[in-house]
Amino acid sequence: KEGCEVLYIGAEKFFEVIYCVYVYRALVRVQDLIPEKADQLIWLRARVHTSRAKGKQCFLVLRQQQFNVQALVAVGDHASKQMVKFAANITKESIVDVEAFVKKVEQKIESCSQQDVELHIERIFVISQAEPRLPLQLEDAVRPDGEGEEEGRATVNQDTKLDNRVIDLRTTTSQAIFRLQSGVCQLFRDTLTKKGFVEIQTPKIISAASEGGANVFTVSYFKTSAYLAQSPQLYKQMCICADFDKVFCVGPVFRAEDSNTHRHLTEFVGLDIEMAFNYHYHEVIDSITDTMVQIFKGLRDNFQTEIQTVNKQFPSEPFKFLEPTLRLEYTEAVAMLREAGVEMGDEDDLSTPNEKLLGRLVKEKYDTDFYVLDKYPLAVRPFYTMPDPNIPKYSNSYDMFMRGEEILSGAQRVHDAQLLTERAIHHQIDLEKIKAYIDSFRYGAPPHGGGGIGLERVCMLYLGLHNVRQTSMFPRDPKRLTP
Amino acid sequence: KEGCEVLYIGAEKFFEVIYCVYVYRALVRVQDLIPEKADQLIWLRARVHTSRAKGKQCFLVLRQQQFNVQALVAVGDHASKQMVKFAANITKESIVDVEAFVKKVEQKIESCSQQDVELHIERIFVISQAEPRLPLQLEDAVRPDGEGEEEGRATVNQDTKLDNRVIDLRTTTSQAIFRLQSGVCQLFRDTLTKKGFVEIQTPKIISAASEGGANVFTVSYFKTSAYLAQSPQLYKQMCICADFDKVFCVGPVFRAEDSNTHRHLTEFVGLDIEMAFNYHYHEVIDSITDTMVQIFKGLRDNFQTEIQTVNKQFPSEPFKFLEPTLRLEYTEAVAMLREAGVEMGDEDDLSTPNEKLLGRLVKEKYDTDFYVLDKYPLAVRPFYTMPDPNIPKYSNSYDMFMRGEEILSGAQRVHDAQLLTERAIHHQIDLEKIKAYIDSFRYGAPPHGGGGIGLERVCMLYLGLHNVRQTSMFPRDPKRLTP
Repeated sequence: KEGCEVLYIGAEKFFEVIYCVYVYRALVRVQDLIPEKADQLIWLRARVHTSRAKGKQCFLVLRQQQFNVQALVAVGDHASKQMVKFAANITKESIVDVEAFVKKVEQKIESCSQQDVELHIERIFVISQAEPRLPLQLEDAVRPDGEGEEEGRATVNQDTKLDNRVIDLRTTTSQAIFRLQSGVCQLFRDTLTKKGFVEIQTPKIISAASEGGANVFTVSYFKTSAYLAQSPQLYKQMCICADFDKVFCVGPVFRAEDSNTHRHLTEFVGLDIEMAFNYHYHEVIDSITDTMVQIFKGLRDNFQTEIQTVNKQFPSEPFKFLEPTLRLEYTEAVAMLREAGVEMGDEDDLSTPNEKLLGRLVKEKYDTDFYVLDKYPLAVRPFYTMPDPNIPKYSNSYDMFMRGEEILSGAQRVHDAQLLTERAIHHQIDLEKIKAYIDSFRYGAPPHGGGGIGLERVCMLYLGLHNVRQTSMFPRDPKRLTP
Repeated sequence: KEGCEVLYIGAEKFFEVIYCVYVYRALVRVQDLIPEKADQLIWLRARVHTSRAKGKQCFLVLRQQQFNVQALVAVGDHASKQMVKFAANITKESIVDVEAFVKKVEQKIESCSQQDVELHIERIFVISQAEPRLPLQLEDAVRPDGEGEEEGRATVNQDTKLDNRVIDLRTTTSQAIFRLQSGVCQLFRDTLTKKGFVEIQTPKIISAASEGGANVFTVSYFKTSAYLAQSPQLYKQMCICADFDKVFCVGPVFRAEDSNTHRHLTEFVGLDIEMAFNYHYHEVIDSITDTMVQIFKGLRDNFQTEIQTVNKQFPSEPFKFLEPTLRLEYTEAVAMLREAGVEMGDEDDLSTPNEKLLGRLVKEKYDTDFYVLDKYPLAVRPFYTMPDPNIPKYSNSYDMFMRGEEILSGAQRVHDAQLLTERAIHHQIDLEKIKAYIDSFRYGAPPHGGGGIGLERVCMLYLGLHNVRQTSMFPRDPKRLTP
């Protein structure tokens, strides 16, 4: 074709299809194809979502992310029989450039996001050709469980989706989940930045397994070995001892735990907070719950489309929360559970089924999907947890729950080297291994506390999903290391 | 004392000093101590920066982060001899609560950030006592090299600083560096979010060393072994193939390289970008350089105090940049270097000294500390780099430089599975190991490119520092794994 240049590929000789575009031609976005654009001649780059030939016509659905539009190639002034045949043979998921007239339609096209217009294609070029056999069909991957079973319509099991994540992530559901996840991170940081928190970057390769050595991955480090950090806690606390006052970080944390459940990953993203407080560790709880509430509000107000999209495939009730956030004490929770027939001791930890039951009881009684459980028994918390000054068997520690599942664990930390040493001895931790940690508190340390939030769990539970692998782009568990 | 409560400590029995505060008393910040507050009675929590007893008086300097104020305890109506003695014995770096009157001073206190007022202390409590012997003195740690040498004043060497990072991070210089670093991350993300980029989270534990296997850390992963990702590149590219269109991520990257230089770390923070483009990979370069320019402007406009603070200890010229960013081709750089007497072949890579020399030549000629070097020889770039479509020995790839040192490496990527396979074979890479990577491009992939920026290098070079360990809170190198 005259005037065409192929500047951007360098690979053109490997394509068997027509492969040629004008340089710096303006491209229109699918979501901007509205009736006001009727009769305009536009260029568009999109994927072939579906293709169906019918006599002298070929109907395509062209897709960009969650948006799609119907397009038509028909034998006539601008299209030859060959062109219709060429269009009909373009494989699904190929990327094409089309030149087309926007046309208003009389009857809404229910199956497309752009229901009021269609495209009448003048020219079509293949930019990148997909292989003809896809490992999974996008329409199957977004089908709600059970729907269309009688017609023999398939759904795609989770392992197939994850094995072919690069295709599975193209579905409207995945696009919505991960755009919302991006939003959670942004809301988390923006809220804390406004509150005067400083973002820090903490090392992931560490020399000693600070929390006792269990569940930690070992790394070969030149002639020695090292570990992957199970949390940024030591480093967050060092930043508090170093006068950063209020800090947060967002980054991977690693757990070498052989747990194959719906909510455990071996690598996940931690949203971590640590802050000095003035008089009471509830100042920390208030900062964290307010941050969560700002996230919930931000999602509710700015991500409705994403929430609705996910709900189409995975229906769930809207997420409910109170202001101020409900805070229960551990003893109250135990009482509620006992009233519901659960037998447990005052200082027993909550089992996963009891957590969920408690979540239902709290929802019934208080109508909230988010609450704080405060003052855990000291015995079930890590050695660096500050004991309750009044009742020694309890502690200044808390968990936070969404839809009955834990999303954050936190506490006031012991900031006195001597007490910390005593607590470590009580927990039979090798003092030599945590020397650097304890020494951090020898040169003046303010009272402080914090917590770590699991990003994937927040997204899963906010959306009412049932597997944390759905909210991890490339999940890692004891059995999955790929892709 | 009457009415006092000790709610927040739970450790009070371990303190030998007076230890008691009122609950929810308002605390004033040091930077808010200005003449307008004169004669007010205030409460303040701060560190004892220095302490000097003199007859019936004790002068303290109280510090919060980069702010400090002079405070006086004098025998009189409110203070006994014992109290002056008590105050004089409080160890440096201890955290205290004081009740004091704000008093205007006649002569400016040059040594403090709050020069117009001092505090007359009525009451003083120790919140957290520092051990009497500090491993390093803060005033030594911020002393410019060479200053006060004749008076025998010490500076602190880098290893001592890093070994005692929790104290070193309290210095004005460190506080400024890491507040600026937090700003770089925020500017990076905000700029890209405004441009429509989506933040992604990529896994750090990977099953195969995708870039050939050199310089990669090995992790024990249950009954098998895995690797730490050298970059998020594969995952960024998969997101592009999955229609996220424009993505960024901020996270740790790992290099098992035994390089003990001023600019290499084994773990650093990558600011990564990847985007589909329409017609030319320069669209990618333009997005990245514009992002860098927004960062430079944001730092210049919002972090002047931090820049000045660092400059006091480490003087440097203000960072210069052009708009639009200067873009040179590799052949031009080779010509400039040859003109300056360097002997090198057309397809030789740039050595570190030549990079620096080139930086000086570019600065002289164009008066900029930031520029792009485009169209690298194909031979010196990774296998997934797109060859130049016109001149086969060059490639669509680029590096970016600040003050003559590389901060970003990037390229248009090969997005065609067949060409990618050929390039891998040419580089003698085991195809089996990169099968998942190549397969990502089989189902339609848009032309795309990107790059990875080293956060610590950007901060180091922007501030004109000379060691990347200064801009890593807890640096990791072949010889350092602690704290």
